[in-house]
Amino acid sequence: MVTVTRRATFSASHRLYNPKLSDRENEEIFDKCANIHGHGHNYVLEVTVAGEPSAKTGYVIDTKKLKEIMSREIIAKVDHKHLNVDVEFLRGVIPTAENIALAFWAILEPAITEGRLYRIRLHETENNVVEILGRGA
Amino acid sequence: MVTVTRRATFSASHRLYNPKLSDRENEEIFDKCANIHGHGHNYVLEVTVAGEPSAKTGYVIDTKKLKEIMSREIIAKVDHKHLNVDVEFLRGVIPTAENIALAFWAILEPAITEGRLYRIRLHETENNVVEILGRGA
Amino acid sequence: MVTVTRRATFSASHRLYNPKLSDRENEEIFDKCANIHGHGHNYVLEVTVAGEPSAKTGYVIDTKKLKEIMSREIIAKVDHKHLNVDVEFLRGVIPTAENIALAFWAILEPAITEGRLYRIRLHETENNVVEILGRGA
Amino acid sequence: MVTVTRRATFSASHRLYNPKLSDRENEEIFDKCANIHGHGHNYVLEVTVAGEPSAKTGYVIDTKKLKEIMSREIIAKVDHKHLNVDVEFLRGVIPTAENIALAFWAILEPAITEGRLYRIRLHETENNVVEILGRGA
Amino acid sequence: MVTVTRRATFSASHRLYNPKLSDRENEEIFDKCANIHGHGHNYVLEVTVAGEPSAKTGYVIDTKKLKEIMSREIIAKVDHKHLNVDVEFLRGVIPTAENIALAFWAILEPAITEGRLYRIRLHETENNVVEILGRGA
Amino acid sequence: MVTVTRRATFSASHRLYNPKLSDRENEEIFDKCANIHGHGHNYVLEVTVAGEPSAKTGYVIDTKKLKEIMSREIIAKVDHKHLNVDVEFLRGVIPTAENIALAFWAILEPAITEGRLYRIRLHETENNVVEILGRGA
Repeated sequence: MVTVTRRATFSASHRLYNPKLSDRENEEIFDKCANIHGHGHNYVLEVTVAGEPSAKTGYVIDTKKLKEIMSREIIAKVDHKHLNVDVEFLRGVIPTAENIALAFWAILEPAITEGRLYRIRLHETENNVVEILGRGA
Repeated sequence: MVTVTRRATFSASHRLYNPKLSDRENEEIFDKCANIHGHGHNYVLEVTVAGEPSAKTGYVIDTKKLKEIMSREIIAKVDHKHLNVDVEFLRGVIPTAENIALAFWAILEPAITEGRLYRIRLHETENNVVEILGRGA
Repeated sequence: MVTVTRRATFSASHRLYNPKLSDRENEEIFDKCANIHGHGHNYVLEVTVAGEPSAKTGYVIDTKKLKEIMSREIIAKVDHKHLNVDVEFLRGVIPTAENIALAFWAILEPAITEGRLYRIRLHETENNVVEILGRGA
Repeated sequence: MVTVTRRATFSASHRLYNPKLSDRENEEIFDKCANIHGHGHNYVLEVTVAGEPSAKTGYVIDTKKLKEIMSREIIAKVDHKHLNVDVEFLRGVIPTAENIALAFWAILEPAITEGRLYRIRLHETENNVVEILGRGA
Repeated sequence: MVTVTRRATFSASHRLYNPKLSDRENEEIFDKCANIHGHGHNYVLEVTVAGEPSAKTGYVIDTKKLKEIMSREIIAKVDHKHLNVDVEFLRGVIPTAENIALAFWAILEPAITEGRLYRIRLHETENNVVEILGRGA
Repeated sequence: MVTVTRRATFSASHRLYNPKLSDRENEEIFDKCANIHGHGHNYVLEVTVAGEPSAKTGYVIDTKKLKEIMSREIIAKVDHKHLNVDVEFLRGVIPTAENIALAFWAILEPAITEGRLYRIRLHETENNVVEILGRGA
C-alpha cells in the first residue's frame, strides 16, 4: 500500500469546558485548560491519503490538490480563530485534540476523491499528538 | 565568551489590537491577528546567560536554577493564559512577540544573578522568531 | 480508531554486552557500543494509547495522567541513570533499544487503565528508532 | 511486533514529466515541477524492518548493518544525482516520491535478510511524505 | 536591540562548477557537487531585520510584509528552479550557499525599508548553514 | 561577514563531579548529574567558521574539509565514549557542556586554517545549549 501525507499548520485558541458540568468539576477535569479566557496552540495537521499511484502522473494524489482541499475545508476555518466560538463545525463539541481531529475526519473523508482518507494526525504541542485511523488502516 | 541557553515552552492565546485605533485601522494593520476572540500559539522561549564557567562547578549558571527562574518568573504566569487579559505585566501592551520578549527581558534581567542576561529568543511559530540582545552582545 | 500519544525524554548511559559471549565476540557484534565504560543517549519515548474519546471529557486519556504514569513508572527510574547497572527492571537484559522498549511495554501495559496501550516508540538517536505494536494494532 | 527504523538523507534533483504527454499537458499536471532544468530536494529516507529481537544480540537487525545496506543499495546511487538521468533503476519512471519509494522497496526487500522490510517513508519536503507498507503491516 | 526573523523554504537544484577551471580541477575541488546534471536541496532561508518596535503596532516589521518581500524578491525567482541556469541574479556566480546568501543580501537590503537587514541564514542541508551578518551586527 | 556552520553529533556518557569536594557537596551541586555510574547524551556540535568566500571556489571553507577536521579532532575521540575516563583532552576537567565546548575550542582553533573559528555551539539536550564566541564575534 502507498500513502501520501501533507502537513499544514494553524494557530488557534481553545478552552476545554463541558457545559453540562459545574465549574468546579470542569476545573478538576481540565485544570488550567479550563481557564476562562482560553489559551492557544500552533497545531500541526498531517492528512494521509492511501491509494495506487496513477500510471499517468505517478501520484496517489497531487499534494497541491490535497493542500488546496485542506486549506479550503479546514485551515481557512480554524486558523487565527477561537475554536469554541468561531468555528461552525465545532459548535457543541469539547475541543480536545481528539474531538477536533474527528471533526476534521468527517469533513475531509468525503472531500478527498482521489485515493481514500487513511489517517489524520493532529499535534497540539510537541509532546501531545492524536491520530485517527480509518477502517482498513 | 561563554553562554548557556535554556529552552522552555508555553501555550497561550493573544489578540493584536491597539485600543487607540479604530476597529477598521486595527483590522488593516493586524488582519486576522485582530480577530476579536483571539487565537493562540505554542511559544518557545530561549533564555541565554553569558559569563565565565565557575572553577568549582564548571557552570556559567546551573541550568536547573535557570529553569527554576524561568518557570517561576515567566512560564507560571503565561502558560495556558490569554496574554491580553490574564497577565499582569502585559497590561496595556500590544502583545506582539517583540513586546512580549521585551517584557520578559525586564523581568529576567534583575532575576538572573549568576552571569548576565545576554539574549532572549521567542519563537511565535516555526516561521516567526524575535530576539532581544543586551548591551555588549 | 483514535489514539493519543505523549512524548517524554530521558538521558541515560548504557553498554551493549552479552555476558555469555567472550569480550572478542562482544566487540565483533557490538563494536564501539561495547566500550567498557559505556556511552549515552538522549532517548525520546512516545507512548500511544488507543480508545474512544469519553463523552464527558472528550479525552481518550487525559495526557496529564498519561504523563504522570510515564514519569512515575519509567522516567523516574531511567533518567540520569546507567541502564546496565542502575535499573532494577533491566537486570540481565542487553539494553538495546528493542529490549528497553519491550521492558517499558511490560510495565506500561497494566499501568494504563483508560484506553489500551497501542504503540511504544523509542528514539535512541535522531537516526535510530524502535517501535513496539500491540495486538490489533 | 517489534520494528527498527534507520534514517538517512540524500540530496538530488528531479523533474516531473511524462514523455507520453505533450509539454502543455505536463505543465497542466506538474506545474512548476515540470520546469525543464529540474529542481531538487533534501530527501529523508526512513527504512523500517520488523522481526523478533535476537536472544544473542538483542537486535531485530543491527542498525549498522541496515545503514550499510541503505548506503550501498540506495544512497550511493541517488545522492548528489539527477534522478531522471543518473539513476539506472529509475529509468522510464516519473520520479514522484511515490514512484521513488516503490523503486527503493523493490531493491531493499530482497537485500534485507534479517527480519523483513516493513515500511519505507520518504520525505520530499517538510510538508510532503510518502509511505509504503508491506503485506501484514 | 530587537530583531525579527522570518523563515521560508524553497526547493532548487544547482551544480558547483567554476568555468575558469578544467573539469578535472572542478572534480578535485567540488567532488560529487560538480556532477554534470546537478543535484538539489530544500533550502531554508531565515531573514532577520533589526529595529525598534513601533509604538503604534508593536512590530519592528510586520512579518506578513517581510514574508511578501521575501516571496516576491527571492522565493518566486528560485523555488523549483535550477540555480545555475534559471536565475538572472545568479548568472556567473558559483552557487555555493555562501554566494547565494550574498546575492540574497544584495537584493533584500534595499527592499527592506522598515528596520534594517541584520542577518541572513541559509540552510543548505540539516548539517550545513551559512550566515551573513551586516555591519553593526 | 560570512560564516559557515557544520553540524555533527556524538553519543557519550559523563558524570558531573568535582573531586576536590565531598560526595555530599557534589550531590548538593550536581544532583542527579553526580550519579556514580554516569548518564549520557546525544550531543549536537555546531562549528562556525568566519571568512571571505574564495573567488576560485565560492567557499569560506569547504564543509567536506570542516567535517573531516571535526571528525578527526573531536568526534573520533568522544563518540561512544565516557567523557570522564576515556578522553585524554578532558582529564581533570568537570565535563559540563561549558567545559567540553571550551576544550573543543582549544583543539579546533589551531586546526582550522581556512577562515577562522568564530563560534562553537554544543547542545547537551534539546533544552540546554552552550555557545563559545571568539574575539571579534
